[in-house]
Amino acid sequence: MSAQAAVGVDLGGTNLKVALVDGKGKILGQRTLAVEASGGPRRAVADACDAIDRLLAEQSLTCGDLVGVGIGAPGPISYREARIIHAANLPGWQDVDLCTPVSKRLGTQVAFDNDGNAAAYGEYWAGAGRGTDGMVMLTLGTGVGAGVILDGQILHGHFDNAGELGHMIVVPDGLPCACGQAGCLEQYASASAVARRVIAAVEAGEACVLSTQVGGRSAVDARRVAEAARGGDALCLRIWDEACLYLAVACINIQHAYNPECIVVGGGMSEAGAFLIDRVLEHSRRHRWCLHDDFPSVKLASLGYHAGVVGAAGLAWTRFGEAK
Amino acid sequence: MSAQAAVGVDLGGTNLKVALVDGKGKILGQRTLAVEASGGPRRAVADACDAIDRLLAEQSLTCGDLVGVGIGAPGPISYREARIIHAANLPGWQDVDLCTPVSKRLGTQVAFDNDGNAAAYGEYWAGAGRGTDGMVMLTLGTGVGAGVILDGQILHGHFDNAGELGHMIVVPDGLPCACGQAGCLEQYASASAVARRVIAAVEAGEACVLSTQVGGRSAVDARRVAEAARGGDALCLRIWDEACLYLAVACINIQHAYNPECIVVGGGMSEAGAFLIDRVLEHSRRHRWCLHDDFPSVKLASLGYHAGVVGAAGLAWTRFGEAK
Repeated sequence: MSAQAAVGVDLGGTNLKVALVDGKGKILGQRTLAVEASGGPRRAVADACDAIDRLLAEQSLTCGDLVGVGIGAPGPISYREARIIHAANLPGWQDVDLCTPVSKRLGTQVAFDNDGNAAAYGEYWAGAGRGTDGMVMLTLGTGVGAGVILDGQILHGHFDNAGELGHMIVVPDGLPCACGQAGCLEQYASASAVARRVIAAVEAGEACVLSTQVGGRSAVDARRVAEAARGGDALCLRIWDEACLYLAVACINIQHAYNPECIVVGGGMSEAGAFLIDRVLEHSRRHRWCLHDDFPSVKLASLGYHAGVVGAAGLAWTRFGEAK
Repeated sequence: MSAQAAVGVDLGGTNLKVALVDGKGKILGQRTLAVEASGGPRRAVADACDAIDRLLAEQSLTCGDLVGVGIGAPGPISYREARIIHAANLPGWQDVDLCTPVSKRLGTQVAFDNDGNAAAYGEYWAGAGRGTDGMVMLTLGTGVGAGVILDGQILHGHFDNAGELGHMIVVPDGLPCACGQAGCLEQYASASAVARRVIAAVEAGEACVLSTQVGGRSAVDARRVAEAARGGDALCLRIWDEACLYLAVACINIQHAYNPECIVVGGGMSEAGAFLIDRVLEHSRRHRWCLHDDFPSVKLASLGYHAGVVGAAGLAWTRFGEAK
């Protein structure tokens, strides 16, 4: 009998998502679990496998119906050795092999990649990038995650860490980044950065319709900044527009680096839809070169928060699907 | 009998270089011809083929001893269709197929790519990048040419124009570039840009040991700027150092984009040797991230002005070498 589903696992700093996904990228069932970082990888693997068992039972399937499991994990990872090198948001998780224990417990093959690549693969395989020969994904969330697909393959590079485009320097000697660099894209264009910059400006005395909300910091987020910018607030508009400008610079640099067919933009910032994309395209046009008509299309992601699990499952379908 | 040599052709705006190259990248013989742009592609093909005939005769070889011909041409090109789309420095050369007439005249297979990619392939195949699984080359000359090799393959991208890294924006809203963008790497780090910036500063009244030479503009070039900077001239040092800073930013962005094993730097600027590379590395270290030890090695090119012909011949050896 042919395989019915693949499992996608998306490991984050606080949540672990597990989904059963069919060969066309449709989610048949899913669970979101809290990650108990202190329980270590062993606990996370056990919890994930228990959840997979329940998802299979709900669909009247068994492990024998699985084409395989795909895991997306926070980097840096070693792709070649299929291990997490160290997960910044999971204290104590160093040099972790998740694949072997999952494979033993479920009796399936396991594909492994980092979370940014898994999300990009999701959009390529079953989302906004479907049908292209290559695409770059930018996920504008807490940071800026990214993944690069060229000719249908995820780009890993010599050190397994290609496509870390959130740390592209767009402002030499610009805002400091926790990574050690200065002026990284994610200091200007992540959802967190946009909120953080508005808060800092208000605290420095600038007028803003969100100023009364700055006391309780969590109340200011990228969604509210976008709303206030749309409503004409000068400070929010300036910071939103700067994010769009630096995203345009990033898109132009991506154009020249990879010449991809399209760039897919996801994450919290992308909830603003056309208010994000149209402004990015406007800045791109103003700065764009005239030597060749090779600017990629820039699209909103279509899988939302499911890109990671769908992409992880897609890795399993692509790698193991033909073997069954 | 097995093939003895491949022909490399490097077409530029003023010169056309032709070389006979053995399977290890050694040049057996070469000619540099003037390109008569007004004679059109037909004249250039005839001249090149005549030169190839003479080179073969000198080595007591015939066309039957050739594995093939490789051509590097100024872009933008269509790689898929093996045509020049339009050559900026060769007026009237639009939609040009050089491969068919060369193939007919010599009775050999012909490989085709743009000049930046051919030079990069030269350094990868027989120069400073030999033995790596991938590398990026930056040629700092009149502009900044570039080429990207990943897993042994030249990266072309969806629009055949990947790796145009001279037009990576390193200074948003920076110096205008003829390409239509602003703040391109080649406005700061090409040999021409460094000379141009010193001349502009002297004309604006800044003190400089080269000021007496600025009248005859051609007398100020990147080599003289490097010498003056080494000698302690403040203006030359500032502009040289800015070139190195933006090259460092470019290297960091290349690191995150492709994660290549090495970056090879060639062209006029690279004649300064350690005075270029050491300063680039110094800026890179100061700006480098701490999340993963994946900074590529940065090396001087080793083939000099021959990278283009050697690389073009290398394309022919790689593509057709096994077929013989």
